[in-house]
Amino acid sequence: MFLGTRRVDALSPYDRGHAYGDGLFETLRAHRGELPWWDAHWARLARGAQRLRLPLPDPAQVRSEASQVLAGLDAVLKLILTRGEGGRGYAPSAQAEPVWTISRHPLPPASPAGGLTLRWCDLPLSEQPALAGLKHCNRLEQVLARAEWDDPAIDEGLLCDASGAVVCATAANVFVLQAGVWRTPPVDRSGVAGVCRQVLMELAEVRVQRLNADDVLGADAVFLCNAVRGILPVARLGERHWAPHPAMAGLRHRLGATHPAFVPSQD
Amino acid sequence: MFLGTRRVDALSPYDRGHAYGDGLFETLRAHRGELPWWDAHWARLARGAQRLRLPLPDPAQVRSEASQVLAGLDAVLKLILTRGEGGRGYAPSAQAEPVWTISRHPLPPASPAGGLTLRWCDLPLSEQPALAGLKHCNRLEQVLARAEWDDPAIDEGLLCDASGAVVCATAANVFVLQAGVWRTPPVDRSGVAGVCRQVLMELAEVRVQRLNADDVLGADAVFLCNAVRGILPVARLGERHWAPHPAMAGLRHRLGATHPAFVPSQD
Repeated sequence: MFLGTRRVDALSPYDRGHAYGDGLFETLRAHRGELPWWDAHWARLARGAQRLRLPLPDPAQVRSEASQVLAGLDAVLKLILTRGEGGRGYAPSAQAEPVWTISRHPLPPASPAGGLTLRWCDLPLSEQPALAGLKHCNRLEQVLARAEWDDPAIDEGLLCDASGAVVCATAANVFVLQAGVWRTPPVDRSGVAGVCRQVLMELAEVRVQRLNADDVLGADAVFLCNAVRGILPVARLGERHWAPHPAMAGLRHRLGATHPAFVPSQD
Repeated sequence: MFLGTRRVDALSPYDRGHAYGDGLFETLRAHRGELPWWDAHWARLARGAQRLRLPLPDPAQVRSEASQVLAGLDAVLKLILTRGEGGRGYAPSAQAEPVWTISRHPLPPASPAGGLTLRWCDLPLSEQPALAGLKHCNRLEQVLARAEWDDPAIDEGLLCDASGAVVCATAANVFVLQAGVWRTPPVDRSGVAGVCRQVLMELAEVRVQRLNADDVLGADAVFLCNAVRGILPVARLGERHWAPHPAMAGLRHRLGATHPAFVPSQD
């Protein structure tokens, strides 16, 4: 944990991260101690910091500390940046030094070989253009949505907004293949602008468009993606089953070509 | 700080309060070391804990620790309850022991004798019925709204939802007098079910109804209220000025009769 550039031993109970979720985070895939998508993660963090008027720590220091924490391993690195101490009251202090923590976590278990099983979440996501797209620390909606099921056969849940537009999964973006073109929902009212989503939009033709539940169910192929796990093909959503699709295999191959961390184990 | 019933010295950087704002809080007025609205605060905390499926600490222990922290003073007591450690990922752990902190803060400065000066905030509040009414720790909207101004002549800002319905101020509920009856907006889609708001609804005839900006500007009297400061008469909102109103004085008097902490200094 760091306060500005100084290492500290403990979080303050007055940290605005703890009091208000007044912060941002990034969850990065580490491959042999390296962070292949560092630049994209830092760029999103910087966009969020600008929107929340949070001072950013020194990226060189964060990277160097991350490298020590990672110790050359394959892992997940989590970075949390909060506004630090701010007394009681919502007004952000202009003087507060930001607090940042980095922590290493094991890679998640491999996803099921046949593809993911999804459900629809009941919770409608709220719409807040001022926060949409950011990976901010106000995540109670995701906590509530993920708490809707504890059946281990269900891998993830899809979330819609109040108008029925599909937004994302609890911890991943969603892509669907319609008429030979990949499509993913906009994230300007809800949802997170995922780093893997962005990488894929640069690798392939992807249309950002509003999708409803029927668009997903009627798609020729569906996948989820995030920066830790890359592309995760979906096999099942309720009664709907999808067979492996060559366009999915092609996209996974192209993603794997960008960095060995994202080479698919098996298609 | 306490983990379950055990006192701990530091917050874990893995606390889900810090990571996701996965918690609840209460801000209580203390008068000579006592907490006049304790029951109402605890009831709201319990409702929130049920909604978020957070285990509650032992109220007797919290009250006894609060009493020691308060040391007989007039002050503000802040209680934060978070889900504790939960690893990485949104799924709440069923085993996690809740973490709670209590802290004492000075009373805020007296409000301006002539009444508050308000502004309209630009940020529209999002609508999330699953969280509305709760005093949860996802407060980035309030942080952003409060950051809209730094003019010390402005005391508070009013917030509307995306449909233009007035919801609340950044840290207070709002009441308006129309045709001799006090009215306050519902808090079932946005906003917090304030403890002072609830006390006033038991003391006087209050109609819960949707209000728009014109309803506020056209009202015969307007006040904000919260559990720390009681009733705060509004003197000004943009070009609109309000003179002191006898109905306001009457209601402040009735609130003051419930407990000496809320006796108005001057009307």
